[in-house]
Amino acid sequence: MAKHKIALIPGDGIGKEVLPEGVLVLEAAARRFNFELEFTDFDWSCDRLVKTGKMMPDDGMEQLKAFESIFLGAVGWPGVPDHVSLWGLLIPIRRDFDEYVNLRPVRLFEGVPSPLANRKPGDIDFWVVRENTEGEYSSIGGRMFQGTDDEMAIQQSIFTRKGVDRILKFAFDFASTTKKKHVTSATKSNGIIHTMPFWDERFAEMCKKYPNIKADQYHIDILTAHFVRNPDWFDVVVGSNLFGDILSDLGPALTGSIGVAPSGNINPERKYPSMFEPVHGSAPDIAGKGIANPIGQIWSGAMMVRHLGYPEAAEAIERAIAASLVEGGPRTKDLGGNGDTKTVGAAIAELV
Amino acid sequence: MAKHKIALIPGDGIGKEVLPEGVLVLEAAARRFNFELEFTDFDWSCDRLVKTGKMMPDDGMEQLKAFESIFLGAVGWPGVPDHVSLWGLLIPIRRDFDEYVNLRPVRLFEGVPSPLANRKPGDIDFWVVRENTEGEYSSIGGRMFQGTDDEMAIQQSIFTRKGVDRILKFAFDFASTTKKKHVTSATKSNGIIHTMPFWDERFAEMCKKYPNIKADQYHIDILTAHFVRNPDWFDVVVGSNLFGDILSDLGPALTGSIGVAPSGNINPERKYPSMFEPVHGSAPDIAGKGIANPIGQIWSGAMMVRHLGYPEAAEAIERAIAASLVEGGPRTKDLGGNGDTKTVGAAIAELV
Ligand SMILES: CC(C)[C@H](C(=O)O)[C@@H](O)C(=O)O
Ligand SMILES: CC(C)[C@H](C(=O)O)[C@@H](O)C(=O)O
Repeated sequence: MAKHKIALIPGDGIGKEVLPEGVLVLEAAARRFNFELEFTDFDWSCDRLVKTGKMMPDDGMEQLKAFESIFLGAVGWPGVPDHVSLWGLLIPIRRDFDEYVNLRPVRLFEGVPSPLANRKPGDIDFWVVRENTEGEYSSIGGRMFQGTDDEMAIQQSIFTRKGVDRILKFAFDFASTTKKKHVTSATKSNGIIHTMPFWDERFAEMCKKYPNIKADQYHIDILTAHFVRNPDWFDVVVGSNLFGDILSDLGPALTGSIGVAPSGNINPERKYPSMFEPVHGSAPDIAGKGIANPIGQIWSGAMMVRHLGYPEAAEAIERAIAASLVEGGPRTKDLGGNGDTKTVGAAIAELV
Repeated sequence: MAKHKIALIPGDGIGKEVLPEGVLVLEAAARRFNFELEFTDFDWSCDRLVKTGKMMPDDGMEQLKAFESIFLGAVGWPGVPDHVSLWGLLIPIRRDFDEYVNLRPVRLFEGVPSPLANRKPGDIDFWVVRENTEGEYSSIGGRMFQGTDDEMAIQQSIFTRKGVDRILKFAFDFASTTKKKHVTSATKSNGIIHTMPFWDERFAEMCKKYPNIKADQYHIDILTAHFVRNPDWFDVVVGSNLFGDILSDLGPALTGSIGVAPSGNINPERKYPSMFEPVHGSAPDIAGKGIANPIGQIWSGAMMVRHLGYPEAAEAIERAIAASLVEGGPRTKDLGGNGDTKTVGAAIAELV
C-alpha cells in the first residue's frame, strides 16, 4: 500500500480547529481507497514567533523537503504584523518550493444560497489560476526619508517571461481538460504600463499555441464587475499574484461562503512539496469557539489527494461535501446553520 | 450671472454619444439655477492620434488651464494600445492637474434591479475615494532582456507621505459630512510588504486626528468579497490608485449598471481644473448605435456643478435621474429597456 508523508501545519486561530477535521476526512478517504497517509505535526505559527522569535526554525524549509505535501490551516494573528507572519512562513513555502500555481475552484453547491439573485448551481463553476511566486508580491522595494514629510515607500512588481509563461501554460493545459475549454486573462494594461502589457503579449503568444481554447481578457476592474454580473461567463481565469488573490476571494464570495473555498499551491513538476490550504484566514473573531466552517480545509484535502494520484478519493470527498450540503446535514453559522466544526467534519467523514 | 468655462472632450466611441446628453442636462440646470456655462469643444481622441500622431496637441495641457472644469466622455479605441491612448490624455490630465481625488458614488436607485439578492435602495449607498496621481500607476519601470527567454518587466509603485496623507485627509473630511461618518481603508499589507504597511501607518495616524469618525480596514481581497456580501457596511471607502479603480467598478456593478456610474477627478485646492467623466469606457461593442446609457455622463455633470458651487443644481439633476428611473421613463438596454441615448438624455433634461 502506497504511503505518503504529509506535513501538517495548523498555524493560527481557526487553522487549529479546521485542520483536524481535514485530517479526519483524509483518513476516511485513505481507508476507503487503500492508501496510507503518514502525518507529522509542526507547531509553526504566530504563537511560536512570540515564544521563539521565528515562525519556523532556521532549517524549516529543509525539514519540509522530506514531505510529499503540506496541509496547512491558516497563518496570522493580531499583534503580529501580517507581513511578518506571512513572509515568515506562508510566502517562503510558496516561493522557495516553486509552487507557482495557486489553483482555486469557485463552485456554487446545491443547498447553499448565493448572495447573487437568480443564480443556481451550474451558473457558478469555474477556476482561478493564480501566479504564486512573483509579480506584485515581491520583497524588492523599501522606504526613504523615513519619519519625515518626504517619506516614501516603493514596491517593485517583477514579472519574468519564465514566470508568466509557465502560469499561462498551466492555465491553457488545465482548460484543455475542462468542458468549456476557455481561458480568461486578468490584466490592467491600460493603467499599469510596464508589466501588464508584457503579460498581455505573453498571453497573445500562448493563445497561438492553443488554437482550440477560447481565450479572452478583461481589465481587472471590469473583470470584478463581470464576476458579479456574469459569473457564468467563466471557466479558467488566470491572473497575476495580486489579481489572482483578489479574484479568488471575490469568486467564493459569490458562492455563499469563503469558508468552503479551498486552494492548492502546486509545483507541477513535483520537484518540491505542494501545499494545500483553505482560502480563508485564521479568523481571530471566531477562533476558539469551535464554530468555524471546516469545508474549505476538507475540500483542500480533496485537492491534495488528487495531486497525490487518487482522483477517485478526491471525488468521493467532493461528493461527500456536496451531499452534506444538500441533505440538510449540520452546517456552520456562515452557511446559516448552527452546527459546530467537529459535527460538520464528522458528518462529511461519515459520508466518505 | 456667473459664467464658468468648461472644456468638453468627448473622446472616443460612446463618449461622443453620451457627452452631448450631459451637456443638454447641464444647460437645463444652468437655466433653472441662473448660472452660465461656456463650453469649448476639443477633438482629442484616438481618431486624432491616428491622424496626427498625438492624442492632444503639445500645448494641450496649457490650453486646458484656461478652463474651470473639464467634462470628458471616454477615451480608448481598438487598434490603439490602451496604455498609449490613456497615458497620452487621461492620465496626464489627472496627474499634472493634481486631481488627486477620484470620487465615485455607488448608489442603488429605486427602479433599478441589483444583481444581488434581496438588496433595496438604501442598502447600497456609499462612496469610493480613490487616490488618483501616484501609487501603482507609475511610469517608472521597464523591460530588460527584451525578446529573449530572460525577458522581464518591472513596475514600481510609489507611495509618498504627501500623496497618501492628502487622500486620507480628504476621505476623513468627506466622511465628516456624511450620515454614517465611517471610513474604510483598502489595504494589502499582508502581501505587498513595502507600500501597504506604509499606507496602514498613515491611516492609523490620520485616524487619531478624527476621533469621531469610525474607521476600519480590510485587505483588498476580502474587501471585494464584503462589497458583494455586505454592501451596507460601507460609507466612505478609501483606496490606492489601483485598489480604488477596482472597487469603483465593482461597486457600481452591484447597483445594476456601470452605465450610470459617475466620477470626479478633483483638485480640492482648485489650483487646476477638475475633470468629470463617467466610470464606463468607450465601449466599442455598442458605439455608433446610439444606445449607450447617458446617465453616467449626466450624473458626472451633477458632480461638476456641485464642484462649481451649485449644490441645488446638482441635487436637481440627481433627483431627475432618480425620478426618470422610478417613473418608468425611457431606459437603455443595459437597464433592461429599449430607449436610446437621446431619449433618455431629453427625458432627464425635461425633469430638471
Ligand atoms: C481607463 C483606465 C486607465 C482608467 C483607470 O484605470 O484609471 C479607468 O479604468 C478608470 O477607472 O477611470
Ligand atoms: C495571507 C495572504 C498573504 C494571502 C495572499 O495574499 O496570498 C491570502 O490572502 C491568500 O490568498 O492566500
